[in-house]
Amino acid sequence: MRLRYIPPRMPGTTSQSAGRSLLACEGMSKAEIESILDAAEKYRAMIDRREQSDLLRGKTVVNAFFEHSTRTRTSFEMAAKRLGAMAVNFDPGLSSTAKGETLADTVRTLDAMGVDSMVVRHASGGSAAFVARHVRATVVNAGDGRHEHPTQALLDAMTIRRALGTVEKKRVAIVGDVLHSRVARSNVHTLRALGAEVVLVGPRSMAPTDLKSAISSKIFNDLREGIAGADVIMTLRIQLERHARAQFPGGGEYARLFGITPARLEWAKKDGKVLVMHPGPCNRGVEVSREMLNDERCLMLEQVANGVAVRMAVLARACGAEQ
Amino acid sequence: MRLRYIPPRMPGTTSQSAGRSLLACEGMSKAEIESILDAAEKYRAMIDRREQSDLLRGKTVVNAFFEHSTRTRTSFEMAAKRLGAMAVNFDPGLSSTAKGETLADTVRTLDAMGVDSMVVRHASGGSAAFVARHVRATVVNAGDGRHEHPTQALLDAMTIRRALGTVEKKRVAIVGDVLHSRVARSNVHTLRALGAEVVLVGPRSMAPTDLKSAISSKIFNDLREGIAGADVIMTLRIQLERHARAQFPGGGEYARLFGITPARLEWAKKDGKVLVMHPGPCNRGVEVSREMLNDERCLMLEQVANGVAVRMAVLARACGAEQ
Amino acid sequence: MRLRYIPPRMPGTTSQSAGRSLLACEGMSKAEIESILDAAEKYRAMIDRREQSDLLRGKTVVNAFFEHSTRTRTSFEMAAKRLGAMAVNFDPGLSSTAKGETLADTVRTLDAMGVDSMVVRHASGGSAAFVARHVRATVVNAGDGRHEHPTQALLDAMTIRRALGTVEKKRVAIVGDVLHSRVARSNVHTLRALGAEVVLVGPRSMAPTDLKSAISSKIFNDLREGIAGADVIMTLRIQLERHARAQFPGGGEYARLFGITPARLEWAKKDGKVLVMHPGPCNRGVEVSREMLNDERCLMLEQVANGVAVRMAVLARACGAEQ
Repeated sequence: MRLRYIPPRMPGTTSQSAGRSLLACEGMSKAEIESILDAAEKYRAMIDRREQSDLLRGKTVVNAFFEHSTRTRTSFEMAAKRLGAMAVNFDPGLSSTAKGETLADTVRTLDAMGVDSMVVRHASGGSAAFVARHVRATVVNAGDGRHEHPTQALLDAMTIRRALGTVEKKRVAIVGDVLHSRVARSNVHTLRALGAEVVLVGPRSMAPTDLKSAISSKIFNDLREGIAGADVIMTLRIQLERHARAQFPGGGEYARLFGITPARLEWAKKDGKVLVMHPGPCNRGVEVSREMLNDERCLMLEQVANGVAVRMAVLARACGAEQ
Repeated sequence: MRLRYIPPRMPGTTSQSAGRSLLACEGMSKAEIESILDAAEKYRAMIDRREQSDLLRGKTVVNAFFEHSTRTRTSFEMAAKRLGAMAVNFDPGLSSTAKGETLADTVRTLDAMGVDSMVVRHASGGSAAFVARHVRATVVNAGDGRHEHPTQALLDAMTIRRALGTVEKKRVAIVGDVLHSRVARSNVHTLRALGAEVVLVGPRSMAPTDLKSAISSKIFNDLREGIAGADVIMTLRIQLERHARAQFPGGGEYARLFGITPARLEWAKKDGKVLVMHPGPCNRGVEVSREMLNDERCLMLEQVANGVAVRMAVLARACGAEQ
Repeated sequence: MRLRYIPPRMPGTTSQSAGRSLLACEGMSKAEIESILDAAEKYRAMIDRREQSDLLRGKTVVNAFFEHSTRTRTSFEMAAKRLGAMAVNFDPGLSSTAKGETLADTVRTLDAMGVDSMVVRHASGGSAAFVARHVRATVVNAGDGRHEHPTQALLDAMTIRRALGTVEKKRVAIVGDVLHSRVARSNVHTLRALGAEVVLVGPRSMAPTDLKSAISSKIFNDLREGIAGADVIMTLRIQLERHARAQFPGGGEYARLFGITPARLEWAKKDGKVLVMHPGPCNRGVEVSREMLNDERCLMLEQVANGVAVRMAVLARACGAEQ
């Protein structure tokens, strides 16, 4: 029993949930990923028809965001509500952690309230797994430091599959700060499991070529070379506020070297039939040009729409209520 | 198609909602207003009986308040929940806009999550209409700068109609900072459409007489003159924190010149049978005297109660689910 | 009629709720407390089975926390949702009170929106009763200054009853800042009503012996003496941030004198069969040692689990929907 201090003499305490946690994409099999994507397709149709289900009635999903992200939290909240779960937002910024409580104690307390799945975002890599070791609820990693952001990679895979029919054998160029990005990391694992060819592209400080062996992906420091032959260009958010001047020359310089524009899509394919993705929020005119954002090859909003569907599938799985 | 970057090749994306936005009272017909008020009467009875409906089951209503207002947001949240909608509070203060995302991108992202109606409050006039041009969801204006606050005017009209049987031919004196007030502006349009006679009363800096031609309402800078013959005195909140000393002499001076007291109601009608309203929150003893607030002719809490009912009617309409 | 300014001429306004407020444990009879605990047992089973009820469908429960407490607010929110109520979090920090509105006006406004029960936390003792005098909704006190925190005491009683079969004739030592603690105050009343023997233990500044006559409990300034013979040691949170150095020598010193460890349980009973409780959040290693927190005799998480169940019972009662 993980939750050590609920005494065993107390009968009737919550039994371990029948659901499955989602902590990382690393190690997920192709079959496992595809089963989530197949469920997500069904949920996407449910969203489009504006239907609500009672699948998770009686289940409690808590959004425990120790790092702010209104966008992702809202997506998970909508997913939980559309499946009929009780969705509770726990905002630890205002809570006991401010009173010196440890992370382990905070999540154990929440857990004891009768939670089925806990959606955790935290600034430290490994924190989702840490939480999972301390609670009986299942844990869904909504981004832990520079480690992983599994639902983002799953919604990206779903978006590619819907647009191109399959992910297999497609060439995907991930462009940006690939060294520090949890989105990149989760996508490399997911796309590879699904049989895609993944290449990484970015400035030398963000895409060191010695990363190559570690993740056995091709690394390019030149955009033109990197995206040649790509079916999909997956751009990453540049966190302008985080990068020191020494390492990174600012948005304008980045845009000049790595910004995606309609004209540059011809570097990938002569006919320009290339899909462009971005996890959002986008620095307009930096990672992707304004013109590109309004181009139908840019799938940003499709990614958002698929995000709710993927999270419905992941939460149903995490609550042990798959159909 | 407004939402330009959901590519048309993607089938199954959300179709334009069948509902109707509510961006302004200006231009609404008497019939349109009365149909909302009639529906609101039905919902008021539902609230009083503590019934909940499934009318909006499957629909998502997002409160996107880019300017804080717990009171109005709570009223909309209660309205959405009583009709069975999924009510989601999106707090952009903590969100992507802080990361440099534009308003258009933020609301497009929300929209792509599967929203039926977006309740928008924003500090800039015209922002509700701006949002409506960028999303497929319908938009309900919950106050945009100095422009309009339509649900406030509708709940005020409902309150007068319930108290006096009709709005038609009633004389309504709006007292306060009529120049800068979105509440005044929405009320002038609504009350006129319903056949009331509207006069504006306030200090010269807040009710310049050259406003008269612009809005073709009578303007008074003297309270006694302005409220003579009034059936209803609609006071406005004085934003003490916003007014520079030069323009405005402070709460005490305002109360002396424009504060409403039981004794002053006889300036309106000899028998004192006059209704007093205030949109809240009230500076006690400034716009309305403490004694007046406890008088049964003061309808402040009736306004609040009708507010939830009017918002139920407006959200049902906005979600295309009118009965 | 308490709500003076909803005019009596308005028909159809909310009638006084049939429910019962919970403002304090002082004055509650044994029968009343036991009826709440019996209902809570039923709800605990419902939580453990992950069932949701429609008992409070149509009812609105507002969490009005004028002092932050994510943990307690989340517990009440889960309780309300599991019973099918509309649960609304009203965060006055961001609201009208910031615009100078009085507490009475803020809660009257909320009340007029159609609220059945208002859960109030506030920094001032007596504020829950104050709110109850101004609204038609029933009020549940979720902690008012140094006065009371009734649901905490009820969940503590439930935890003891579940662990020991009964509260009657059990010796409970409350250890900590008993002078300033609302948890201690509510517990003294509740445990006494249930027939327990209560002793208070703490440093002289926190447990002055002249308190003895006021509350007719035994007071000890020495831990060993105070816990001798105890069946339950109920520790209180030390608010390290609030205590001036002059009065209180810091966490290390407190732990040395009053911290509970497995070894010290033998001071209570030779066989060490003693239960340890803490209302949370706990300063690990101060009130309770790290080793003790992981001991099965420490019931902290049981307290949390019972907290949701007790709040379900209290909210059902407050909404007049007891079964």
